Amino acid sequence: MIDFRSDNVHTIADPVLKEIIVANKNTVASYGGDELTKNAKEMLAEIFNKEIHSFFVSTGTAANSLSLASITPEYGTIFCGSDSHIYLEECNAPEFFTNSAKLYPVKTKDGKIIYGELEKALLFHPSDEFDMVASSLSISQATEAGTIYKQDEIRNLKNIADTKKLKIHMDGARFANVVAATAKKPQELTWEAGVDVMSFGTTKNGTMSAEAVIFFNTNLSKKTNLYMKRSGHLLSKMRFISSQIIGYLKNDLWIELARSANKKANLLSENLNKFDFIHLPWQTEINEVFIIVPKELEDYLKKHGVFCHNWTKISLDSQYHRDNYSFLRLVTSFHSNEKDIYKLTELIEKF
Amino acid sequence: MIDFRSDNVHTIADPVLKEIIVANKNTVASYGGDELTKNAKEMLAEIFNKEIHSFFVSTGTAANSLSLASITPEYGTIFCGSDSHIYLEECNAPEFFTNSAKLYPVKTKDGKIIYGELEKALLFHPSDEFDMVASSLSISQATEAGTIYKQDEIRNLKNIADTKKLKIHMDGARFANVVAATAKKPQELTWEAGVDVMSFGTTKNGTMSAEAVIFFNTNLSKKTNLYMKRSGHLLSKMRFISSQIIGYLKNDLWIELARSANKKANLLSENLNKFDFIHLPWQTEINEVFIIVPKELEDYLKKHGVFCHNWTKISLDSQYHRDNYSFLRLVTSFHSNEKDIYKLTELIEKF
Amino acid sequence: MIDFRSDNVHTIADPVLKEIIVANKNTVASYGGDELTKNAKEMLAEIFNKEIHSFFVSTGTAANSLSLASITPEYGTIFCGSDSHIYLEECNAPEFFTNSAKLYPVKTKDGKIIYGELEKALLFHPSDEFDMVASSLSISQATEAGTIYKQDEIRNLKNIADTKKLKIHMDGARFANVVAATAKKPQELTWEAGVDVMSFGTTKNGTMSAEAVIFFNTNLSKKTNLYMKRSGHLLSKMRFISSQIIGYLKNDLWIELARSANKKANLLSENLNKFDFIHLPWQTEINEVFIIVPKELEDYLKKHGVFCHNWTKISLDSQYHRDNYSFLRLVTSFHSNEKDIYKLTELIEKF
Amino acid sequence: MIDFRSDNVHTIADPVLKEIIVANKNTVASYGGDELTKNAKEMLAEIFNKEIHSFFVSTGTAANSLSLASITPEYGTIFCGSDSHIYLEECNAPEFFTNSAKLYPVKTKDGKIIYGELEKALLFHPSDEFDMVASSLSISQATEAGTIYKQDEIRNLKNIADTKKLKIHMDGARFANVVAATAKKPQELTWEAGVDVMSFGTTKNGTMSAEAVIFFNTNLSKKTNLYMKRSGHLLSKMRFISSQIIGYLKNDLWIELARSANKKANLLSENLNKFDFIHLPWQTEINEVFIIVPKELEDYLKKHGVFCHNWTKISLDSQYHRDNYSFLRLVTSFHSNEKDIYKLTELIEKF
Repeated sequence: MIDFRSDNVHTIADPVLKEIIVANKNTVASYGGDELTKNAKEMLAEIFNKEIHSFFVSTGTAANSLSLASITPEYGTIFCGSDSHIYLEECNAPEFFTNSAKLYPVKTKDGKIIYGELEKALLFHPSDEFDMVASSLSISQATEAGTIYKQDEIRNLKNIADTKKLKIHMDGARFANVVAATAKKPQELTWEAGVDVMSFGTTKNGTMSAEAVIFFNTNLSKKTNLYMKRSGHLLSKMRFISSQIIGYLKNDLWIELARSANKKANLLSENLNKFDFIHLPWQTEINEVFIIVPKELEDYLKKHGVFCHNWTKISLDSQYHRDNYSFLRLVTSFHSNEKDIYKLTELIEKF
Repeated sequence: MIDFRSDNVHTIADPVLKEIIVANKNTVASYGGDELTKNAKEMLAEIFNKEIHSFFVSTGTAANSLSLASITPEYGTIFCGSDSHIYLEECNAPEFFTNSAKLYPVKTKDGKIIYGELEKALLFHPSDEFDMVASSLSISQATEAGTIYKQDEIRNLKNIADTKKLKIHMDGARFANVVAATAKKPQELTWEAGVDVMSFGTTKNGTMSAEAVIFFNTNLSKKTNLYMKRSGHLLSKMRFISSQIIGYLKNDLWIELARSANKKANLLSENLNKFDFIHLPWQTEINEVFIIVPKELEDYLKKHGVFCHNWTKISLDSQYHRDNYSFLRLVTSFHSNEKDIYKLTELIEKF
Repeated sequence: MIDFRSDNVHTIADPVLKEIIVANKNTVASYGGDELTKNAKEMLAEIFNKEIHSFFVSTGTAANSLSLASITPEYGTIFCGSDSHIYLEECNAPEFFTNSAKLYPVKTKDGKIIYGELEKALLFHPSDEFDMVASSLSISQATEAGTIYKQDEIRNLKNIADTKKLKIHMDGARFANVVAATAKKPQELTWEAGVDVMSFGTTKNGTMSAEAVIFFNTNLSKKTNLYMKRSGHLLSKMRFISSQIIGYLKNDLWIELARSANKKANLLSENLNKFDFIHLPWQTEINEVFIIVPKELEDYLKKHGVFCHNWTKISLDSQYHRDNYSFLRLVTSFHSNEKDIYKLTELIEKF
Repeated sequence: MIDFRSDNVHTIADPVLKEIIVANKNTVASYGGDELTKNAKEMLAEIFNKEIHSFFVSTGTAANSLSLASITPEYGTIFCGSDSHIYLEECNAPEFFTNSAKLYPVKTKDGKIIYGELEKALLFHPSDEFDMVASSLSISQATEAGTIYKQDEIRNLKNIADTKKLKIHMDGARFANVVAATAKKPQELTWEAGVDVMSFGTTKNGTMSAEAVIFFNTNLSKKTNLYMKRSGHLLSKMRFISSQIIGYLKNDLWIELARSANKKANLLSENLNKFDFIHLPWQTEINEVFIIVPKELEDYLKKHGVFCHNWTKISLDSQYHRDNYSFLRLVTSFHSNEKDIYKLTELIEKF
């Protein structure tokens, strides 16, 4: 079995698990009133070099939806990429948590929201006194295509968003991979570029189940405690999420894990790129490799125990018709084995 | 003042008002348990030549949203035109009434949903066990561009929708204008073409405030009474909506009124089309005329007391840049005056 | 047929219908941008002798729910009478419009919320940082028992409510009957006693379908336009609600109609009270008479064409067990016939 | 520090933590498609001796709300104890997850819903075609007073509930303590007594964060996957919840832990009961001890490092006025130290 299904099929990194074990003593205040939670929040503030308000939950969908609910009223519109996770893969959680806000998909290229399309969407969004209100913009960093917005690209989107005073959310499910892949500081990629609130993911990169909602604009967090509770996302034994985050951040483990995952994806990408019957539609910038392959190759790989996901979110170019071609996503993690990459390469060589 | 703002700036047609006056005697059961309501429902069934379940409410947004809520679960997706009223102009009412369903805008041409775009949308809609469920398709007849789907065109959309077992909703805010403009029977344009539930509008065409939700698929109406009540849309003195519908349908008044409105729009269209600096992007098929004009003409008309709406829902072609051109909508009604059309023409001639 | 079912089985008062007819000319701005709507709002402001914000909708449930949604967040608690319309008879509309607020029923006596019970409810309502927030108090004036809160009684409730900074809503479905029955000015019964927002009913007292949401605390109305639209309660031809309200208020018609209804209820009450086998649990203060009668009398009356509702909202005292007794409600209107009252009396005399 | 605040201030039991560590190897399917999740579900089925459908989430509020949403439509009424957790302590999560169902509090005695009160509530619940629908009954086992419903008592409530075909939910946040305290099998306390769906808590009794929604009536679980996803409660690395449940159930650990907690509460209860100025309103049946004490004693204890919660959910009897008395809750766990109980006793002796 060669497993490139997702980063969430992998384990907990040892230093994270160790912090859970360390946290497992004594009685402490529940619901986040404990010292570990305080420490974890301080570590986040330090990493982002800013006073922030942060809240810890157990899933990325919860983090995204709580973020969006803090910046979008029930009569609001959320602009997002047409291939974004919040639009396509969260089973209407954003609409649910916001009490019925509208998602407005904006076309993307290489996973990135196209400026002109956002401009047009805002220009033609209704704005009478009885119309829904343009409220927020959600950006995925890294994108759904495994690419990275440059700081300028985020700032450009922010400038367009400013014309309607949209608040900015960043879906950072794989934010660590972005930081590891660039020479940028976390703050440069977020609040310095105009992000108001982000979902800071850790689960895909080595924790058990720990996602943070981080408010850079601290005025926006007033209702978050109550939103967490009414959505069942306030964990009683919070210390065990907090300890995961501590283990994750301590000694830059998160960067190290992400760098390791990225590195393997690069290796995988290079190896796959050598085959002229394999097409990579996007640059490999983090830990995801997307490939378009003849259907026969997909069958062959699956027969030989290669696990990966079919990517269904976008249409193939006309030259790669879905009757003959498959669109596959391969994801690596800190825990992926380089040997598997070579095994996969050899397997394809024999195809 | 020359008023082409909308059909809803106009009056109640006299025969409709007369029925209200006639209904205003005696005590009768409230909440629709009265004879007039029974009669109105029977008249609708006769017109559509089918056993139906129908419900009367006071706004089109309520009719649309109650319709959609009957065919879309909270975790469902509603496919609709990217310029549709339910997507752009109902302040998230569909999301609200469905308890958080998602709207999925599909590109249109001349107001009509493009088959290939719907096909693609369905093909790439997620379908795993935790994914939102493709549930319904909403079609506007007439369209938002004032054009009319042919019966075949609806059936083609229905065939695509069938691949995912979508239920079909028709937004018939101006359905009367469609029936008046075509040689078709109501049934041919609706249930015979596959429509499950429709919003049957009457307010824009001569009533005070009366819209019907009509279920051709009567299995779908089980919760509608309760949905009406919990959304505050169950009128106690229901007889007065019912009497409007009776007046509207009796002696084919609705067709006559719509024909009159359409005729004036045609006249208006012909007159405007004569000017080479006025561009009509779409065929005038019902009672709406859309024009693209130099900004100076818009200013001139408004200065001279011509009332109409700026159409903001779509972008202008590159040849008509919004810095120099305006997109205007002019709507006629049974109550519009032909003289106003000539006055407008003369006004433009002097421009 | 002798019909005491409800005030909403009755007709539109002639002066109200006349105003509708008068309003039915010319084109006017839709959605409330017309002069009649402006006039109606000014008349309300004058009657309440205060700057107010008012909004017109077509049902009492809509008016109540929009009111409550303006003063209660989704994580809030609404305190209300345990027999209140909003708690028992609106099919969860308040929960729906508020996006999930909680209703907290407080015991009543003679329809009025008991101070001590409200005090206890507030005292034991949770108040930690993750707990739902005590937000609002809803009072029915007149009450569900057809009784009237005195101004002091409202102020007393207000004082208790102030301990948790609750906003106050008044459900005034039969407010006209209260004004007619007391020597009080509208302002004394509402904002002077601390009411922030009220549902001002007119439909039960002689209009077709017209209810106003009136904000005395004008800071609270910021979202109301949007809430109306997203719930489908923004009528396009608003002038026809507005004209009803004009007809209703003009020349104190509303007081006159209510006085007439009250007078008949008093007559009915006196007549029924003469029979020792008929028990009136509550004072008749407005246009509703409640009676407890032997089951045989109920059967006898219904057999002889007397229409009235069985009152199921409260339990009978142990001395009137429901196996042997029935609880009935008889409602009069301006349009009720005194002869019917005498006919009923004679009928009972023959029992 | 002597800590009796809650069971959720305590640690993870070692065998549970061990299973997490054991589970931390290899790649496995995410979102519950792994073997451990399958095993955990089978273990639950075995313990309840029935084919069940079960789903794992991270909080009790999520488990309760997902349960209630599966048996209550948006226009439904949930009957529950007036002191129940779902009514008072979940920040409107039940209203939120059900899309606006109503909670109807029914009076309790010793934490148990009073039959006659439930009967009355059902009898006077509206039942017309536009009325909210009586849908479900929620029972806490153990109760909020730390008492235990006998099997007959549940069956009696079930019989009343059957008159309106209510579905039955059991909030089993401390179900293990009930099983440990009685000689009953899990099935006797649940589906054999008529329970359709339960929240099976484990977090308070030794796991990190693991709650199960268990459907005994397997027809009711059709939407649960989708409800989990749209509320953000589908964990990607599900194996780590499943492994907690495995560790919890294996070798009857759950019973052993609960027995240990119960035993300490009994000891605590006996010790406190000796003081004539300490009043225990309820029998100590599980791991919670409730006491009414003079305010001075509360101050004394808190000054000396005793941690416990003030119980605010119910009013004190008139003989214990809140100006002079405090209502306290002390909770023990498997991890509580008997020495702390003796220390507390000594402390009080010195008072």
